Amino acid sequence: MTTSSPAPARTRVAIIGAGPAGLLLGHLLGRHGIDAVILESRDRAYVEQRQRAGILEQGTVDVLRAAGAAERMDREGLRHDGIELRFDGRSHRIDLPALTGGRSVMVYAQTEVVKDLIALRSEAGAPLLFEAEVLAVEGADTTAPRVRYRHQGREHTLACDIVAACDGFHGIGRRSLPAAHVFERTYPFSWLGVLADVPPSCDELIYAHHPRGFALHSMRSSTVSRLYLQVDPEDGLDTWSDARIWDELATRFALDGWELTPGPITDRSITPMRSFVSEPMRHGRLFLAGDAAHIVPPTGAKGLNLAAADVTLLAAALLRWYRTGDETGLDAYSDEALERVWRAEYFSSLMTSMLHTDPTADPFAQRLQLAQLRHTVDSAAASTSLAENYAGLPLPCIDELT
Amino acid sequence: MTTSSPAPARTRVAIIGAGPAGLLLGHLLGRHGIDAVILESRDRAYVEQRQRAGILEQGTVDVLRAAGAAERMDREGLRHDGIELRFDGRSHRIDLPALTGGRSVMVYAQTEVVKDLIALRSEAGAPLLFEAEVLAVEGADTTAPRVRYRHQGREHTLACDIVAACDGFHGIGRRSLPAAHVFERTYPFSWLGVLADVPPSCDELIYAHHPRGFALHSMRSSTVSRLYLQVDPEDGLDTWSDARIWDELATRFALDGWELTPGPITDRSITPMRSFVSEPMRHGRLFLAGDAAHIVPPTGAKGLNLAAADVTLLAAALLRWYRTGDETGLDAYSDEALERVWRAEYFSSLMTSMLHTDPTADPFAQRLQLAQLRHTVDSAAASTSLAENYAGLPLPCIDELT
Repeated sequence: MTTSSPAPARTRVAIIGAGPAGLLLGHLLGRHGIDAVILESRDRAYVEQRQRAGILEQGTVDVLRAAGAAERMDREGLRHDGIELRFDGRSHRIDLPALTGGRSVMVYAQTEVVKDLIALRSEAGAPLLFEAEVLAVEGADTTAPRVRYRHQGREHTLACDIVAACDGFHGIGRRSLPAAHVFERTYPFSWLGVLADVPPSCDELIYAHHPRGFALHSMRSSTVSRLYLQVDPEDGLDTWSDARIWDELATRFALDGWELTPGPITDRSITPMRSFVSEPMRHGRLFLAGDAAHIVPPTGAKGLNLAAADVTLLAAALLRWYRTGDETGLDAYSDEALERVWRAEYFSSLMTSMLHTDPTADPFAQRLQLAQLRHTVDSAAASTSLAENYAGLPLPCIDELT
Repeated sequence: MTTSSPAPARTRVAIIGAGPAGLLLGHLLGRHGIDAVILESRDRAYVEQRQRAGILEQGTVDVLRAAGAAERMDREGLRHDGIELRFDGRSHRIDLPALTGGRSVMVYAQTEVVKDLIALRSEAGAPLLFEAEVLAVEGADTTAPRVRYRHQGREHTLACDIVAACDGFHGIGRRSLPAAHVFERTYPFSWLGVLADVPPSCDELIYAHHPRGFALHSMRSSTVSRLYLQVDPEDGLDTWSDARIWDELATRFALDGWELTPGPITDRSITPMRSFVSEPMRHGRLFLAGDAAHIVPPTGAKGLNLAAADVTLLAAALLRWYRTGDETGLDAYSDEALERVWRAEYFSSLMTSMLHTDPTADPFAQRLQLAQLRHTVDSAAASTSLAENYAGLPLPCIDELT
């Protein structure tokens, strides 16, 4: 029905947010006959077009396949078996499957995952309301929680068993948890990201460390490049002309025998870098998933993947509970999710500090950073540790959801 | 001759300092007929009794054996095949040979290595002057350098081909290099180290991370324990009574089913923690080795081992030069040594930050540290990376010296 039919007044699982977390959760539950209503504050066009992450780790690929949501991803996505670390004028490849027993990543934009999941939900006729602004989560510590929201000018109440807040950092979900512990860090740099209508100058992603700052060459397809530059957090988009962006990218990626091909820039944005974790991820019948509970800096490409891991775990726990009354999965959800979250926070922070140029670093810290990069590529063990974190840990619950 | 005979006025290699670096260099050269004079500012009793490191990595063990200086070490030293990481109330063993293809470490005090090498030098009748204070290194950029020193109230000049400064951080060697680049860091904590006449409460070393600070349980022998506590850099020895030391150790090592046995403390000292590197490690005919060029915090047990690696590399380069006139080894010495030095600086800094309690850390940093510790013990790759750094990289030149 998506937006037109009248919304139900009651559902089993009320899902706040139609980002990848909320949509995937709704899809996983729907496949097992557990009905859910997804409430999204934005309109469909906005949700389907916002530029976010683009790297799916092996576990995310696995769960999308297991859920029958991978058809277009498998047709259009680019499987990547390696990444390149470039520093000190040299290039080093991390071979993901060779180091992880066959695991790899998929280049397929989050926005495409979102489109696919919305399409599947529309086909199934499952409730998904756009421009539905949640006003309050009530009774989370009772067995009959309610979500109050405004839609098409009127207030509604959705009664449910469970509220899943997949509504991001600024959502109401996190604010509805009493007494959360918050852990955060801001980094002294931002990312300037651009989309360019030009074939990528590389077959695999390049993570470059340069004295002038970090740069990342990614891609969306064989004809669209995605590029990032570490910039000063005070910088505005107006200080970065197209020419300056391409010059700076060329400088930071510079390597003998390699050339960066510039092209028309079609989208640009500046994103601050930060880490954030809110604990616990559950209060009574209210569960947080994805950015509602945690933010990672994008360097390790873990944000979307953590969201997918959260909802996989939550869907499996809900399935067990609805089938057998077994609450252990729900009770364990917060601790289990947070274990993976902290590992990802550690990896993301490690990648961030290893690859960026810290404007406050003294000469000792600069040398130590180069020693760390060299050790990472010279030691098979250190390369393996990077590869297994980058390709991602297996998701434990996929079997229960297929 | 050690101290009594008149000193020669000329030698091939003038070695400043009779710590493990200078003594091992003299020994390696002497075995191949290259004469050297060692000048040591302290007296023999001081040199033979100062408490320093106690863990020999595999490469150091290998070179001592190859040089015929391992007889007592092999009889009295304790081979250790693992270390324990203890945090969050749990214990995790890092199995060194299993993770590194058979490499392990030897618990044998630096002071015993020094005694053995002095004894060998005495037996060989090779020149080693105690209480010989070096006043100047002259002509390092000529082919005929000289070392001026004071001994038994008189000034002397030692003419030589090469000067090897193995005289530590405070020595004259480092100050004789023009235009060195200096890299350094001080850490916001010190180590209180004690020797105790009590059998160790463990078979292998325990590296403990506790909210109150780091603690290390090491040993000198089956009857003598060596223990360390992270303390405030402002602390004096007078603030740490025996009772307080044992209480604090018991708290930081606390583990169900395990007990720390206290005993009489026979030696105590407080050492600041710092990292220091001076580049390059060579100027003309003057070469630096060991603490003269670099200091690591003791957490990775790398100080003595880096010194042994430096002089092994230098001895091999000198041997090639004297035999064939080939200067490439001498020319490469600084770069080759520094590559290992920076890897050890990285590892030592990593172990230090991972295991100590940083008084300035915010809650996010504290959680990240626990995530790093968990990842280190949970991931085989991360454990292997730690084990291979701890047991140490092979020394490339040992074959040339046997």
